[in-house]
Amino acid sequence: MRVLILNGPNLNLLELREPDLYGGRSFDQYLMELETFFEGRVNISYYQSNSEGGLIDYLHNNMDRFDGVVINAAAYTHTSIAISDAVRLLSVPVIEVHISNIYKREEYRHHSFLSPVVEGVICGFGLDSYRLAIEALFNRV
Amino acid sequence: MRVLILNGPNLNLLELREPDLYGGRSFDQYLMELETFFEGRVNISYYQSNSEGGLIDYLHNNMDRFDGVVINAAAYTHTSIAISDAVRLLSVPVIEVHISNIYKREEYRHHSFLSPVVEGVICGFGLDSYRLAIEALFNRV
Amino acid sequence: MRVLILNGPNLNLLELREPDLYGGRSFDQYLMELETFFEGRVNISYYQSNSEGGLIDYLHNNMDRFDGVVINAAAYTHTSIAISDAVRLLSVPVIEVHISNIYKREEYRHHSFLSPVVEGVICGFGLDSYRLAIEALFNRV
Amino acid sequence: MRVLILNGPNLNLLELREPDLYGGRSFDQYLMELETFFEGRVNISYYQSNSEGGLIDYLHNNMDRFDGVVINAAAYTHTSIAISDAVRLLSVPVIEVHISNIYKREEYRHHSFLSPVVEGVICGFGLDSYRLAIEALFNRV
Amino acid sequence: MRVLILNGPNLNLLELREPDLYGGRSFDQYLMELETFFEGRVNISYYQSNSEGGLIDYLHNNMDRFDGVVINAAAYTHTSIAISDAVRLLSVPVIEVHISNIYKREEYRHHSFLSPVVEGVICGFGLDSYRLAIEALFNRV
Amino acid sequence: MRVLILNGPNLNLLELREPDLYGGRSFDQYLMELETFFEGRVNISYYQSNSEGGLIDYLHNNMDRFDGVVINAAAYTHTSIAISDAVRLLSVPVIEVHISNIYKREEYRHHSFLSPVVEGVICGFGLDSYRLAIEALFNRV
Amino acid sequence: MRVLILNGPNLNLLELREPDLYGGRSFDQYLMELETFFEGRVNISYYQSNSEGGLIDYLHNNMDRFDGVVINAAAYTHTSIAISDAVRLLSVPVIEVHISNIYKREEYRHHSFLSPVVEGVICGFGLDSYRLAIEALFNRV
Amino acid sequence: MRVLILNGPNLNLLELREPDLYGGRSFDQYLMELETFFEGRVNISYYQSNSEGGLIDYLHNNMDRFDGVVINAAAYTHTSIAISDAVRLLSVPVIEVHISNIYKREEYRHHSFLSPVVEGVICGFGLDSYRLAIEALFNRV
Amino acid sequence: MRVLILNGPNLNLLELREPDLYGGRSFDQYLMELETFFEGRVNISYYQSNSEGGLIDYLHNNMDRFDGVVINAAAYTHTSIAISDAVRLLSVPVIEVHISNIYKREEYRHHSFLSPVVEGVICGFGLDSYRLAIEALFNRV
Amino acid sequence: MRVLILNGPNLNLLELREPDLYGGRSFDQYLMELETFFEGRVNISYYQSNSEGGLIDYLHNNMDRFDGVVINAAAYTHTSIAISDAVRLLSVPVIEVHISNIYKREEYRHHSFLSPVVEGVICGFGLDSYRLAIEALFNRV
Amino acid sequence: MRVLILNGPNLNLLELREPDLYGGRSFDQYLMELETFFEGRVNISYYQSNSEGGLIDYLHNNMDRFDGVVINAAAYTHTSIAISDAVRLLSVPVIEVHISNIYKREEYRHHSFLSPVVEGVICGFGLDSYRLAIEALFNRV
Amino acid sequence: MRVLILNGPNLNLLELREPDLYGGRSFDQYLMELETFFEGRVNISYYQSNSEGGLIDYLHNNMDRFDGVVINAAAYTHTSIAISDAVRLLSVPVIEVHISNIYKREEYRHHSFLSPVVEGVICGFGLDSYRLAIEALFNRV
Repeated sequence: MRVLILNGPNLNLLELREPDLYGGRSFDQYLMELETFFEGRVNISYYQSNSEGGLIDYLHNNMDRFDGVVINAAAYTHTSIAISDAVRLLSVPVIEVHISNIYKREEYRHHSFLSPVVEGVICGFGLDSYRLAIEALFNRV
Repeated sequence: MRVLILNGPNLNLLELREPDLYGGRSFDQYLMELETFFEGRVNISYYQSNSEGGLIDYLHNNMDRFDGVVINAAAYTHTSIAISDAVRLLSVPVIEVHISNIYKREEYRHHSFLSPVVEGVICGFGLDSYRLAIEALFNRV
Repeated sequence: MRVLILNGPNLNLLELREPDLYGGRSFDQYLMELETFFEGRVNISYYQSNSEGGLIDYLHNNMDRFDGVVINAAAYTHTSIAISDAVRLLSVPVIEVHISNIYKREEYRHHSFLSPVVEGVICGFGLDSYRLAIEALFNRV
Repeated sequence: MRVLILNGPNLNLLELREPDLYGGRSFDQYLMELETFFEGRVNISYYQSNSEGGLIDYLHNNMDRFDGVVINAAAYTHTSIAISDAVRLLSVPVIEVHISNIYKREEYRHHSFLSPVVEGVICGFGLDSYRLAIEALFNRV
Repeated sequence: MRVLILNGPNLNLLELREPDLYGGRSFDQYLMELETFFEGRVNISYYQSNSEGGLIDYLHNNMDRFDGVVINAAAYTHTSIAISDAVRLLSVPVIEVHISNIYKREEYRHHSFLSPVVEGVICGFGLDSYRLAIEALFNRV
Repeated sequence: MRVLILNGPNLNLLELREPDLYGGRSFDQYLMELETFFEGRVNISYYQSNSEGGLIDYLHNNMDRFDGVVINAAAYTHTSIAISDAVRLLSVPVIEVHISNIYKREEYRHHSFLSPVVEGVICGFGLDSYRLAIEALFNRV
Repeated sequence: MRVLILNGPNLNLLELREPDLYGGRSFDQYLMELETFFEGRVNISYYQSNSEGGLIDYLHNNMDRFDGVVINAAAYTHTSIAISDAVRLLSVPVIEVHISNIYKREEYRHHSFLSPVVEGVICGFGLDSYRLAIEALFNRV
Repeated sequence: MRVLILNGPNLNLLELREPDLYGGRSFDQYLMELETFFEGRVNISYYQSNSEGGLIDYLHNNMDRFDGVVINAAAYTHTSIAISDAVRLLSVPVIEVHISNIYKREEYRHHSFLSPVVEGVICGFGLDSYRLAIEALFNRV
Repeated sequence: MRVLILNGPNLNLLELREPDLYGGRSFDQYLMELETFFEGRVNISYYQSNSEGGLIDYLHNNMDRFDGVVINAAAYTHTSIAISDAVRLLSVPVIEVHISNIYKREEYRHHSFLSPVVEGVICGFGLDSYRLAIEALFNRV
Repeated sequence: MRVLILNGPNLNLLELREPDLYGGRSFDQYLMELETFFEGRVNISYYQSNSEGGLIDYLHNNMDRFDGVVINAAAYTHTSIAISDAVRLLSVPVIEVHISNIYKREEYRHHSFLSPVVEGVICGFGLDSYRLAIEALFNRV
Repeated sequence: MRVLILNGPNLNLLELREPDLYGGRSFDQYLMELETFFEGRVNISYYQSNSEGGLIDYLHNNMDRFDGVVINAAAYTHTSIAISDAVRLLSVPVIEVHISNIYKREEYRHHSFLSPVVEGVICGFGLDSYRLAIEALFNRV
Repeated sequence: MRVLILNGPNLNLLELREPDLYGGRSFDQYLMELETFFEGRVNISYYQSNSEGGLIDYLHNNMDRFDGVVINAAAYTHTSIAISDAVRLLSVPVIEVHISNIYKREEYRHHSFLSPVVEGVICGFGLDSYRLAIEALFNRV
């Protein structure tokens, strides 16, 4: 199973983002653990961009290369109709994840334009949200 | 690890609820599969009630018997402050699950009184949401 | 035709509820008149509970025993998503009734979670609302 | 008992209006059945207009000729304060009816300017709503 | 000075409208008093219609015959953009009047589509509101 | 007839306030004209304060000295519940006036806490609003 | 192709309506130009009414005489559910037009009850909006 | 004087509820102090339930046994119309109390369905709120 | 214990304010009773002002002279952020009281800027609210 | 006449976007038809970007090369103030188009930040919306 | 350059106001530093009042004595239309300042009635906000 | 002191943007004046991008090179949560500036996602807002 993890703005500097919420680890460190965990079962690709258009371009250009997508659109979750339109174009299952529990944070983080167009949502488990999402994809694909 | 699965109103008749959304399986059938899956790793208890007060009573009376709780409060998710107050009393991690993707349904199902008081939320993966929640508890406990 | 009349909270003390709105008669007195009126045509069952969960339990457990349901969920009309989910599980026609004209009362009584899941609504005719609902069921069943 | 049935805009072409909701019968056909049903008991008059002012004029000019009114103001239900002011002028009981269950339709059909000024509301029983309304008038007059 | 008094829906039956608010007098009786009061100073024309379109037609067709307009659009005050558009077409001063104090009544009577397009508003003085409006026109014309 | 004209904040500098809306005349100049106009018929008192409490104190202390009150609370119209509570204490008729048409101005000037507690409202006739209000008091007292 | 142009309230006096927005031309003058433009290709009928009911009556009575409808309901665009219900009854394509750009005007002109029931919307091109609508009908019919 | 103290959901575990807000004392401990304090003056009964229906049942069944009621409906304060309907049925004075100052907590705890149907509200004095409520009942009964 | 009772606008004329709500007694009469009641236990000071600024000045200038404050800000409760900022400056406990049950009155009296900055709220017990507040202070100081 | 067609996010994959709404044709195919249609009359340039900033950059850099712009900002229509600010900088006429009728889709697609800054809007005619927009530009340039 | 610093309610006790936000310095101490800083360049006058009317009176009476005004209306920023009307009367530039960053505080402090009528706003720099405002006035006067 | 001035969309064409609001000067011209003004005291860097992602990338990549940031995010101020998340990652003080007074413009420009995460806000002083922001940074760094 080929899975794309697509990360949105500021997740490239995860280690700087409020350590209480995010744990102070870089995403690259976590990615290596994840690859080890799923070794032999899942082929994980990773793309991060701070640009709304960049995320859409990547989805368009790599559509046929994956069996499932795990997306953490970060701040764009709450403001981007364009990314949710791009997700609708995909024919493979897409899962929305959040590292922190967005319902414990500012009210403007409670609404997601992605949720109505994805399979399911996993939120609040720290970086483990990504692992759970890949587990979920297994059951779907 | 001892886990409580707590199900809210109408989930006792899951097999009748809109089969498109819920798959037409009874929860008891699923529970047996789940116990098999986690055999030797997790001891699963199950309680269902159609009564808001009944769910609270059960949580109060069994508080010390579990290492984690997976709660699907169904319709009470959206209307019960009392259950979310009961969840706050627990000292073990609690995970909110939904079988269907609530963001694809009526607007009044988009708000949850539970989300701000639980560890995390897993929603939209059919009955597999429960399995993922137990996997998530493993990483926490 | 077997019809269930299901009454929600405080309707057991109808004779005490604002006599201007409700007429000061007890529901039991009315029920006897109703049975006389429909004698030979309809078999009327009656259940009342002050508990949201109790109403749901009764519907679940007696689902197969009726050809139609007349429901006056009283205050739960405006607050219970759980009861409306239970009504959705039924395969027989359900009719929502109100004794008083809810649109002449407090604004929070103007919205009903039941209305979108029932066949029709009859409201404002005093206790006669129940008789009209049973007449309506005749045309449906 | 003399009853006026007052129908609002587009109900003259009932047979064309979304047959799923309205059943594809013309109102004139139904009216004949209704007259047969109530023969000897009720004298039914009928007036339909697509004009808000036309409906008000008719009510003003015929006020003294009826013992009760059954009104389906159709779209004007939701937009006309003027018709509800005209209804307030009447001293006989007025009943609001709707053919379809307006709570299953667009949100802007959920509010009625008529409901707070009528005796009661009957909605969702197809054309049978009119018959039930006349039954209800019997108990009032 | 030639003044048009333009009355909206239900004002033809003023004597029936909630006598507490309106005084139980017919508008025709009042009109005669008004003509006497302004005799020699003002030529008063009067038009009433229950139809939104009828009021607009009258304004269009008689535009050049008056030096000022006193308008009580009654219920259309709160619902008709069309009448306010017609008022904008006039080049003579227009004054909005209300017999009752609309701010003591239902909330939906507090907003007026006319107010932003007229010279001024006089409200709450019973039928005397009309006399005051004509006095006001004197100072303007 | 003894009438109090009570003016709120900034009306002491009427001549400076946006001349397009207010005409560039001082209120004192206007007051003299008004006294001349009503000479022999009305005894006019005048009080202005920029202080919410000052306006209330004046009403309390002079309650028994007038047969009617004309109040232009200016900005306090829209923000002061305290002044409207003071007006409720009066047993003589009170009329609310505005020089400009407040419905042509900022949205926050469209709501008045005074309107529901006064006899009537006169707005938009420039300084002539005051004269019309005194005329209206004549008919009431 | 037979096309009906249906104009709503105040458009009969287009030449008087805010010349900046509408250009000071009468609709009749424009209609002649339009007929010349489409000569031999389209048979244009025209109907205007200031009455909501009048517009509905015309649509009902002439339903079968046209291959397409161009509707500018003017102020009724924003207030009439009844006209949008009438449009739904038609089986030919209907196009909504506006002379001015309604999104540059008052907020209450931004919502249209017609838009969800028509083929498409053309707005802001002055009288040329009508010509474009007929061009659009060509592609549809 | 016979007084009923009626406590809603989760108050049975008061000693666990956020000790900063509630003081870490159990309600039973407090009750004994209260009985000592009012010894000889007031006969205090106590009932607690986590069930909305249970609270209503208790009120219905014990209506005649008390001269006054002190109610802390906890979370049901904000969600239960049914309990407020039950309170309306009582003919003795009812006082609403809250241990914490609900206006310092989440916004959804600021609205109470009970407040408009009780004599008065006492909130924010810790457990002392109950004593003050009984003192208040003395002055009423 | 030295207690300040601080009363806001119009409470100096309590005897005139809607006697049904306030009992027709003057506050000075009540104050004497209160002093008698607490004689030897509490030293009561009293200040009333109709001015928002006057109330703030008094609090600033007398801050050190009291062990607790009972405040009934009347209409300013609902409109004054400035008074609530002044209350925040105090280091002694402050209790908000209302004579009438504000939740039975106009909606704009349901929100209080004071509640989130005081110890607790007592409302609806008539003048007895003040006595209860002083009792509450005893337990705090 | 030189016209720029500027397309926003996901329109590069038009052929994949919900074929029911968009017809399953690629935009490039349509563009060729369009060029043929306007051959000799209009010189059409085309630019598409998935990036908000990319669309703005293109407008800035090519401002002087066109006599008119046809813009379909797709999802950015509803979220981008930045693009509407860029459109304001242009001195040539700009027309907003939409392929589908946005008023038949999700509520969040009903509001456009572009509409108040463009000449006019054409929406709902499928790809033909572009042709109509160019026709409209002809009449303007 | 003559500058007026006008401070609103509670700023006379700045040293007591939440020291974390305001730094625990009195405004008088700061004023001396400010005068030293601008010595020879600016003549600074200072007025503070806790009274809305007092602030307006001061502005009215001293209008001609300053070349610019720096206003911190504190709580009145959010509630006073009267002060913003007074500011409009001034012909010299006025600058709104806030010591704390009001956007980090309660939501009701986010809206300012002053902002739309002043030159500019400076907020969040502690007491330094005043110095920056005077610098800004230099560039304007 | 090293300061970054970060400008958002369309500010590269400042000279074209509504000259009344912005003064018709290019930002580059202003930047040279600013560098001269602060010569020897501040080292000013400048970056502008029309892309949300581009602004975030620049902040991420240059984080360590500045002692303070002055940000004018233009339209992104009101729509970008992503940029405000990036600002939170910075450990140096950030100041938000606006050239025009955004509170005099469209309502959708009144809310800023940046304000709650910056030190302070300076708005409405034309290009001088930037100079004031750098002066403010001096006092902070």
